[in-house]
Amino acid sequence: MKIGILGGGQLGRMMALAGYPFNLRFSFYDAAKDCPSAPLGELYGDAQATQASLDAFIASADVFTYEFENIPVAWVEYIAQHKPVYPSVKSLAVSQNRIREKALFKQLNIPAAAYREVYSQDDLQQAVTALGLPLVVKTTMGGYDGKGQFVIRQPEQIAQAWSELQAGAPLIAEAFVSFKRELSMIAVRGQEGTTLCYPLAWNTHHQGILSHSIVPAPQVSPAIQAQAEQYITQILHELNHVGVLTLELFETDNGLYANETAPRVHNSGHWSIEGAVCSQFENHMRAVAGLPLGVTDPIRASAMVNIIGQHPRTEAILAIPETHLHLYGKTERVGRKLGHITVTAPSYEALQTRIAAIAQELPNKMALV
Amino acid sequence: MKIGILGGGQLGRMMALAGYPFNLRFSFYDAAKDCPSAPLGELYGDAQATQASLDAFIASADVFTYEFENIPVAWVEYIAQHKPVYPSVKSLAVSQNRIREKALFKQLNIPAAAYREVYSQDDLQQAVTALGLPLVVKTTMGGYDGKGQFVIRQPEQIAQAWSELQAGAPLIAEAFVSFKRELSMIAVRGQEGTTLCYPLAWNTHHQGILSHSIVPAPQVSPAIQAQAEQYITQILHELNHVGVLTLELFETDNGLYANETAPRVHNSGHWSIEGAVCSQFENHMRAVAGLPLGVTDPIRASAMVNIIGQHPRTEAILAIPETHLHLYGKTERVGRKLGHITVTAPSYEALQTRIAAIAQELPNKMALV
Repeated sequence: MKIGILGGGQLGRMMALAGYPFNLRFSFYDAAKDCPSAPLGELYGDAQATQASLDAFIASADVFTYEFENIPVAWVEYIAQHKPVYPSVKSLAVSQNRIREKALFKQLNIPAAAYREVYSQDDLQQAVTALGLPLVVKTTMGGYDGKGQFVIRQPEQIAQAWSELQAGAPLIAEAFVSFKRELSMIAVRGQEGTTLCYPLAWNTHHQGILSHSIVPAPQVSPAIQAQAEQYITQILHELNHVGVLTLELFETDNGLYANETAPRVHNSGHWSIEGAVCSQFENHMRAVAGLPLGVTDPIRASAMVNIIGQHPRTEAILAIPETHLHLYGKTERVGRKLGHITVTAPSYEALQTRIAAIAQELPNKMALV
Repeated sequence: MKIGILGGGQLGRMMALAGYPFNLRFSFYDAAKDCPSAPLGELYGDAQATQASLDAFIASADVFTYEFENIPVAWVEYIAQHKPVYPSVKSLAVSQNRIREKALFKQLNIPAAAYREVYSQDDLQQAVTALGLPLVVKTTMGGYDGKGQFVIRQPEQIAQAWSELQAGAPLIAEAFVSFKRELSMIAVRGQEGTTLCYPLAWNTHHQGILSHSIVPAPQVSPAIQAQAEQYITQILHELNHVGVLTLELFETDNGLYANETAPRVHNSGHWSIEGAVCSQFENHMRAVAGLPLGVTDPIRASAMVNIIGQHPRTEAILAIPETHLHLYGKTERVGRKLGHITVTAPSYEALQTRIAAIAQELPNKMALV
């Protein structure tokens, strides 16, 4: 079976590495000839994203998926007219639009920040009045890693926020959620509707980019894990989702609040390559290929540390016990995700020692120190 | 860094899958255009094994290794004149020649079956007299999976054994070792001389081909594990070996007897992909690339089950908890290794239940029932 993946970044690369063992083959749609997935399959796509290039891509594989959500829904609809695509068009359309996403949370009674849709500076003014300050303003579509966001802390910033983001209107204005920490849950749903959830990850960001995750998140009660599993399972079924889905959550004094979803494998799930019985990548491939899902249990305490902008010395990282290095074949650039390190340990204490050793070797330590 | 691998079979394929994450790239020397490794790198080689094809291969990579030992020592010597090759020519020359291998065991005081070199039918007659019956006769070079062997049980069979094997002379005649079970140890040595050993595997064969392995081998005392580690570590250092090496052992009433070595990753180490912190494939790649070695500790009870001749249904295998399927992209043929299944479990009891479920789904159950 050949899987066609829209996008040839590191997520596609890791999907392919997970799928080769059960004889999947791959084609990728990406205009960059040197994209991270390029060595692992056939590459389609051109800078103009012509119809002809999409048709050739569709002809190249049996089943399709995507590795990032900032792609035109029309493309996925077009592919779906010819071949199976997982996750569904609905999953993509909801996840890439913050207004639809928030409406879904509301519909499913999943707690989330109060919000207003914003089509004008006047709407933004009214949102400040209704929801108070600070107020988080985001573009409805296209933002990631902290881009396309503005936090209004003083009323004088309203005009500036509108001016900076109005090209991305409609905007969404969200009440500020005072949270203790950020958690995320990765789950997978098979073609027959079976669902499995990974343990909650504790995520720490630095300047809007994920710095590191610790899994299973320490000090999570079984009730909190069960609550998150209930939320994500509702979302998976409601979207008739097939494949991996990610739910980012805020842990607050009033319980969990949903922040956003991603209809795909996620940076906060990379620990699962070595830390879980079956990784998020293998499970996504199993789901897309119509195969039974793999066990999502964690093997031991794990951490994922992102490599941003500059590479560490490979030999220094691999000298730290139980580390694995995952590089994406990219050149260095400020703020660019170049790879990640996973590390496991028999206890959280031992894990912290190893994370500290990793921090010492990383040129860009992000939030590790 | 680009690694050149002599041979493009399943071992090369799994080396490549283990090496991509730390940005290794690959070229393979194999005349078969559809060999298992073909999708994962550049392919060199032709059916005539011309000098030009070997030169092009040498030009294509920075460091070289091999994935099977039945290759001319002269090729590896030739590569070594231009680029680094690991394991060394010495490792290859000893492992591919049973007489040199037995001499090495003797030199290092590692217990092994008594043996005689056999250059004629008369020598064979004398070996029977000296070592008794049954007597195991093998070609010095080239045998694997039970090929190139003859067990003489009656004196009348001497002429037949000589007649069948004389094309592979000199032969080696070994006293029959009455063993309780077959064990193997996988170990790795880095470029700086560091060594690490995996736990002993318990191997069961069927008609000369490995059927399945259970790791860590149950009922192995720490003293037996330590003894095997001492033997393999002596061999690694004596050969100045870099990379993975395998030592097959007989467990007897008088302790461990060395059977043979392989200067490479081994079928009885495939469990380590999911069952150890760092797999034999990743460790071989780390060693060849001059990087620190990874932790060889087992994560939990593991089994490896070979898929011989006919494929099972993928969905039936993956429905069994904690299974992973590793297919090599080969077509079906009697006696051919098409892939393997790894399975892990929290206890040996649970592992046995899962192995039984796998056996039920395998068209060729080998020694599983």
